[in-house]
Amino acid sequence: MDPLRVAVIGAGYWGPNLVRNFQASTECDLRSVCDLDEARARRAVGRYSTVKVTTAPEDVFGDPEIEAVAIATPAATHRRLAGAALEAGKHVMVEKPLASSVAEGEAIVQLAAERGLTLMSDHTYCYTPSVQRIRDLVATGTLGDIQYFDSVRINLGLVQRDIDVFWDLAPHDLSILDFILPDQWAPVGVAAHGADPIGAGHACVGYLTLPLKRGAIAHIHVNWLSPTKIRTTIIAGSRRTLVWDDLNPTQRLSIFDRGVDLHVPADTEAKREILVSYRSGEMVAPALPEAEALQSVVTEFATAVRARRAPLTDGQSGLRVLKMLDAAGRSLEDGGRVVPL
Amino acid sequence: MDPLRVAVIGAGYWGPNLVRNFQASTECDLRSVCDLDEARARRAVGRYSTVKVTTAPEDVFGDPEIEAVAIATPAATHRRLAGAALEAGKHVMVEKPLASSVAEGEAIVQLAAERGLTLMSDHTYCYTPSVQRIRDLVATGTLGDIQYFDSVRINLGLVQRDIDVFWDLAPHDLSILDFILPDQWAPVGVAAHGADPIGAGHACVGYLTLPLKRGAIAHIHVNWLSPTKIRTTIIAGSRRTLVWDDLNPTQRLSIFDRGVDLHVPADTEAKREILVSYRSGEMVAPALPEAEALQSVVTEFATAVRARRAPLTDGQSGLRVLKMLDAAGRSLEDGGRVVPL
Amino acid sequence: MDPLRVAVIGAGYWGPNLVRNFQASTECDLRSVCDLDEARARRAVGRYSTVKVTTAPEDVFGDPEIEAVAIATPAATHRRLAGAALEAGKHVMVEKPLASSVAEGEAIVQLAAERGLTLMSDHTYCYTPSVQRIRDLVATGTLGDIQYFDSVRINLGLVQRDIDVFWDLAPHDLSILDFILPDQWAPVGVAAHGADPIGAGHACVGYLTLPLKRGAIAHIHVNWLSPTKIRTTIIAGSRRTLVWDDLNPTQRLSIFDRGVDLHVPADTEAKREILVSYRSGEMVAPALPEAEALQSVVTEFATAVRARRAPLTDGQSGLRVLKMLDAAGRSLEDGGRVVPL
Amino acid sequence: MDPLRVAVIGAGYWGPNLVRNFQASTECDLRSVCDLDEARARRAVGRYSTVKVTTAPEDVFGDPEIEAVAIATPAATHRRLAGAALEAGKHVMVEKPLASSVAEGEAIVQLAAERGLTLMSDHTYCYTPSVQRIRDLVATGTLGDIQYFDSVRINLGLVQRDIDVFWDLAPHDLSILDFILPDQWAPVGVAAHGADPIGAGHACVGYLTLPLKRGAIAHIHVNWLSPTKIRTTIIAGSRRTLVWDDLNPTQRLSIFDRGVDLHVPADTEAKREILVSYRSGEMVAPALPEAEALQSVVTEFATAVRARRAPLTDGQSGLRVLKMLDAAGRSLEDGGRVVPL
Repeated sequence: MDPLRVAVIGAGYWGPNLVRNFQASTECDLRSVCDLDEARARRAVGRYSTVKVTTAPEDVFGDPEIEAVAIATPAATHRRLAGAALEAGKHVMVEKPLASSVAEGEAIVQLAAERGLTLMSDHTYCYTPSVQRIRDLVATGTLGDIQYFDSVRINLGLVQRDIDVFWDLAPHDLSILDFILPDQWAPVGVAAHGADPIGAGHACVGYLTLPLKRGAIAHIHVNWLSPTKIRTTIIAGSRRTLVWDDLNPTQRLSIFDRGVDLHVPADTEAKREILVSYRSGEMVAPALPEAEALQSVVTEFATAVRARRAPLTDGQSGLRVLKMLDAAGRSLEDGGRVVPL
Repeated sequence: MDPLRVAVIGAGYWGPNLVRNFQASTECDLRSVCDLDEARARRAVGRYSTVKVTTAPEDVFGDPEIEAVAIATPAATHRRLAGAALEAGKHVMVEKPLASSVAEGEAIVQLAAERGLTLMSDHTYCYTPSVQRIRDLVATGTLGDIQYFDSVRINLGLVQRDIDVFWDLAPHDLSILDFILPDQWAPVGVAAHGADPIGAGHACVGYLTLPLKRGAIAHIHVNWLSPTKIRTTIIAGSRRTLVWDDLNPTQRLSIFDRGVDLHVPADTEAKREILVSYRSGEMVAPALPEAEALQSVVTEFATAVRARRAPLTDGQSGLRVLKMLDAAGRSLEDGGRVVPL
Repeated sequence: MDPLRVAVIGAGYWGPNLVRNFQASTECDLRSVCDLDEARARRAVGRYSTVKVTTAPEDVFGDPEIEAVAIATPAATHRRLAGAALEAGKHVMVEKPLASSVAEGEAIVQLAAERGLTLMSDHTYCYTPSVQRIRDLVATGTLGDIQYFDSVRINLGLVQRDIDVFWDLAPHDLSILDFILPDQWAPVGVAAHGADPIGAGHACVGYLTLPLKRGAIAHIHVNWLSPTKIRTTIIAGSRRTLVWDDLNPTQRLSIFDRGVDLHVPADTEAKREILVSYRSGEMVAPALPEAEALQSVVTEFATAVRARRAPLTDGQSGLRVLKMLDAAGRSLEDGGRVVPL
Repeated sequence: MDPLRVAVIGAGYWGPNLVRNFQASTECDLRSVCDLDEARARRAVGRYSTVKVTTAPEDVFGDPEIEAVAIATPAATHRRLAGAALEAGKHVMVEKPLASSVAEGEAIVQLAAERGLTLMSDHTYCYTPSVQRIRDLVATGTLGDIQYFDSVRINLGLVQRDIDVFWDLAPHDLSILDFILPDQWAPVGVAAHGADPIGAGHACVGYLTLPLKRGAIAHIHVNWLSPTKIRTTIIAGSRRTLVWDDLNPTQRLSIFDRGVDLHVPADTEAKREILVSYRSGEMVAPALPEAEALQSVVTEFATAVRARRAPLTDGQSGLRVLKMLDAAGRSLEDGGRVVPL
C-alpha cells in the first residue's frame, strides 16, 4: 500500500517516540515535525535527518501533501489542534487522554464522524503483545468469568502541574480495562480516593475502584510518590488468573490454574462449606514476541486510514476513558462514594 | 523471674503455634491445652509431651495453678471465654480480632480493668523485627513526615464462612498501622470497597482507604482470591520511604532516599514549578534479626504480667482495630464513602 | 505396620531436625537421643518431652528395644559409630557424607551387607518434591537428552575447621546428581578448582566440573563466602530445560520449552548453519506439594527396614558420592585437571 | 572541540549501535557507514538519513575527510581492516575481541604505536556506570582485599559457527576483570572446561577459572544454552562484597557489609576457631546514572584522539584479553589444568 504521509505535532515527552516509530514504519512516510520550540523539534529528528521541522501547526494543516497528523501535545490543546486538523481534512491520531473534558472529547469525535475522517486514540498499551494476549484470553473464555482486575502503576513520577495523578496515569489502565473487557463485565461506576501529601495542589496518590457488571470489581492504584516502579496487573477469573508484570521482560504474563471454586446450594450452611474447593495447579508463562507497541500503533493508524475502517482504539474508546476520569473526579468530591457511569 | 503458668484454649489454626512458643519460652510454663476436639488438642502437643490436655475450659479456669490463658478460638467466642477467664482471675491474651463487635470488645477491656488483670491483644506482626524497626524509623523522624501507607496482603486464602476478608485479614494491617503511627498521623476515617465474585455471601476481595491526619493516606488491599502471595507495605515519608516485603527473608526492609520535594510559594504558577525537586539517592537494607515474632509475643505477655504493666499491644489497641473494622462495614453499606472515626 | 523403634545419635546441627521428624512420624517411635553434651541432647527433645536422653552411645547399642539408629555426628566418627551400631544388630541411617574416606565408607557398606541390615544415606535433598519431580522428568524423557547440570549453592556459611567447602556442601549436589541421572549420563571424571582467600587452611570457595557420558557436563559452585544465598540448579535437555530455585517456595521448578536444535549434516559449513534452529516456547511451573523432605526420609527408612529392601538412597549411593569427593581432592592437587572416575 | 569525523565499518549486529551513538554524540561527526551488504548499511542509518553509505572500505580509508574508523566486523577481519585503516592514517576503535589471535593483536598494537595513532578496544561494559563504580570501590579499598570474582553470563544465545562460547562471551568478563583489578590481584593463570552437548563443533557451555595473585580466584560461566538470561557478578572483598546484577535496572549494584573475618594465630587449632567471626550488616544499593555505556565509549574515543592520549581501554587491554583467551584454549586441550599467564 501507498505509505501514509504523516506529520507529528508536539515534540515533548511522547512526540519523539512517535517520530522514531513513524520513521521506522514502511507503511508511513514522515513529512514534518512541529513544535513551538524549534530546537526541541530538531532534537526529535536528529542532526542527520531529512525530515522537515516547523513551529507553525498551520504549515502542517496547510500542506496538501500531508494526509494525517499525530498530536502529542498537552490534553488542553487537543480540542483546538485535532479540530483544526480535521477541518483541514487530515486523519488524526491523538495522545491520551483524548481531551481535557468529556464535552471536548465529544466535539472531536463528532467532527471526525461528520468529515468521515479516521480518528484514533493512541492507547499504546493496548498494542503491547501482553495486552493483546490478555484480550484473547478473556475473549476465548480461558480465564472463565472475570472476578477482579487489580492494577498497580506506581513510581517516582514527574509531578504534573496542571493535572492530578488520575488524569496522568489512570488513562493507561482505564484504556486497557476498556480494551480487554467485553460488555458483560463493563464498569458500572467509579469511586476515587486520593491524597496530596506534598501540597502539589491535587492528588499525587490515587486509588480508583470500579464495580463491574456481574459482581466483579476493578481497582487501580496510581502514584507519583513511590520509590519503586511497579507495573503489575492481576486479572482473576473463575478458570484461570493471570498476572501481568510489565517490568519483567522475560516473563510478562503468568497464567495460574489456581483459585477457589464455590458452589452455594440453596440450603444449609453446613452443606455449603463442604462445597468450597481450591484449585492449586500449574502456572504457565506463554512466549510473547518482543514487539514495540508504538510500532503496531502507527501500523494500525495507517492501515485503518487506508482501509477506511475504525482503528482498534477509536475515538469512542478515548471517550469512554474520559467519562471514567470525569466520574472519578465527581467521586473525589463526594468522599469516595461510587458514582454511576 | 518465676515462669508464668499458662494454658492455651483453642488448638485450631493458630493455637499450635502458641503451644510451640510457650513450650520454647523459659519465661513460661505451659500447663494445659484445651480444645473441644481432644484429638486436635493432642496433636498440638504431640505424642511425646507431658502437657495436660482437656476439652473443658472450666478445667482451665478452675485450676488455681494456672495464672494466665491464651485464647485462640473464633472471634465470636472471645467475649464469653475471655470474660470467664478474667472472672476466674486469669490474665488473658486474645487472638485478633479482640472480639466480633465493638461492644463485646469494650466489655472485655472494661472487665480486665476492673479486675486489675493483664489483657493483651495478640497482634503478632507488631512483634516482628521488621515492624519494630519500622516503628523506630517513624518515631525517630528518619522517614520524615508520613505521606502514605500502602499495604497489599493477598494470596489464595481460606474463604471463611462467618467473616468477610476485611475481618479475616485487615486486622493485621490495621494493628500495624495503629502500632507504628503516632497520633499526629492517626486515621480520621475509613472507606471500604469490596466484591464477592464467587458468591461466598460476603466480600472476598477488599480495599480499605483511611485518610490520615495532615493529608496523609493509608490504603489496604486484602484478598482471598489471588493466585500469588503478596505481603508488601510501602510507607512513604518526606525524608525516606521504606518498602517492607515480608516474603523476602533476606531483605525484608528497603529504605529509599528517593522522593519528591515540593516547595509551594504563595505566588505564581511559574515559580512553583521551579521549586519541584527530585531525590534519587541510595537504598539501604538494614540487617534484621530472624527472631520469631510469636516468641516475642509470649515473652511480652509474661513480662507484662509479672511487671504489672500494660503490654505493648494491650486491649485498647485491639479495641481501636475493632472500631476501624466497624467503620469499614458501615462504609461498605454507604457505597464506599469515607466514614469518620 | 509396627512403628520402628529408633534412637538418634548426635544432637548438634542436624540431629534436632531428625528428632523432630521422628517424633512427627507415625511409622517411627523415638526412644532416645544421645549426645556427648547432655544439655544439647535435652534441648533437642525440649522441656516437655518423654523421650530418654543419654550421653553414652553404648546405652543405645545395648538397648534391645531399639531397632534402628540415625547417626548425625561428624563424618570422622561415622565409621566407628555406624560400625558399632551394625555390630549390635541395629539398622542404620547415616548423615552425609557417609564417611570421611572411601575406605571407611566401603567398610560400613560391607558390614551392613554381611549382617543383612538396612543402611541408608540421609541424602535429604533427594526426598524433596522438587528433586523427586526432576528425577521423573529426566527418567520419562521430558527433558530429552541431558546437556548440562549447573548448580550454585552459596551463602555466608559456617567455615568448617576440619573439612573444606567441597566436603561440606558438595555432597548435596553430588547426591542429587547421582539420584536424578540414569547411567547413560553418569559422571566420567571430576575436576576441582578452589581458593582459600581468608586463610582458613582449606578451600572456602570451590568449583567442581564433572564431564558426563555423551558429551554432557555438570558443574557445581560451592561457597562459604557469599553475602547472598543462592540455591539454583539448571538442568538442560534437548527437549526441555528446567531451573530449580530452591529458595522460591512458590515456584521452585520452572520448565522451559526453550533451546537450540542443531542438526549437523556430513557436508558443507554453509548448509550446517541453515540447520540451527531456536525454540522459544512457553514456561511451565508445575504445582508441587510443600512436604518436608526429612519426613519422607524417616518414612523411607522405616519402610525399607520393615520391607527388608534397600532404601532409595542406600549405602552405595553414599559411596558413589564419596568417590566423587575423593577424585575432587586429587584434581585439586593436580592443578584442576579432570581425574577419571 | 572540533567534532571527530568518523566512519563505521560493519553494520551487522553491533555496528548499528555504533551508528546510533556516533549520531547522538556532539563530539563526533558520522561521515559514512560501510558494509559489504549495502542494504544492511542503509538499514543502519535509516530511510531519512544524510549519512553516506558504501560497500567499499577503500572509500573510507581513501577519504581524507575521515579521521577515525570504528570497526565492527568479525574478529578474523580485524587484522586486515584495522591494519589498512592505520596505514591510511586513521585512528581506530576495534570491536572485541581485538583480533582472532595474540599474534594478530600484537601486530595491530605495534602498527598503531609506530604510526602514533589512537587504538581503542571497544570494551563497552567498562564504560557502564556499574563497572566504573565497581572499579572505584576496588581502587579506594572499600571492598578491602579481593577474595573472589564470580561472573555468570548465560542466556539462549546465538550459536556462533566460527568461534566457541569462550571467544564469543568471555571477552566481556575478561575485559571487566582486567579493568577493575589492580595489578596486585592480577590473574596468574587460566583453566577452562567446556562442553558441546549439541554437536556445534566447539564449546557451547564454558567455565573459566583464573587464579589471582594473593590467593584470590576468578570464575566465569559462559553459556549459549540457558533458557534464562543471567548477567550477575559477585566481587567479594574482606571489607565489603558487591553483587552486580546487570538485568536489574533499578538495583544493579548491591554492596553488602557481610563476610567472614578469620584471624589465624601461629598456635593451636582451638584458639583459631575462636577467632572466626561473621559480619552480617546492612546492604547498600548506590544510586547510579542510567547512561548508555556506548555513548561514553564514543566520547572517550573522540576525547582520547583529540587529547593525543591513550584511551581508558587501549590496545594493550585488548591484548591482555586475547592472551587470557589463548591460555583458555590451551587449558581446554590439557584437561582443564591451569595454564600460567
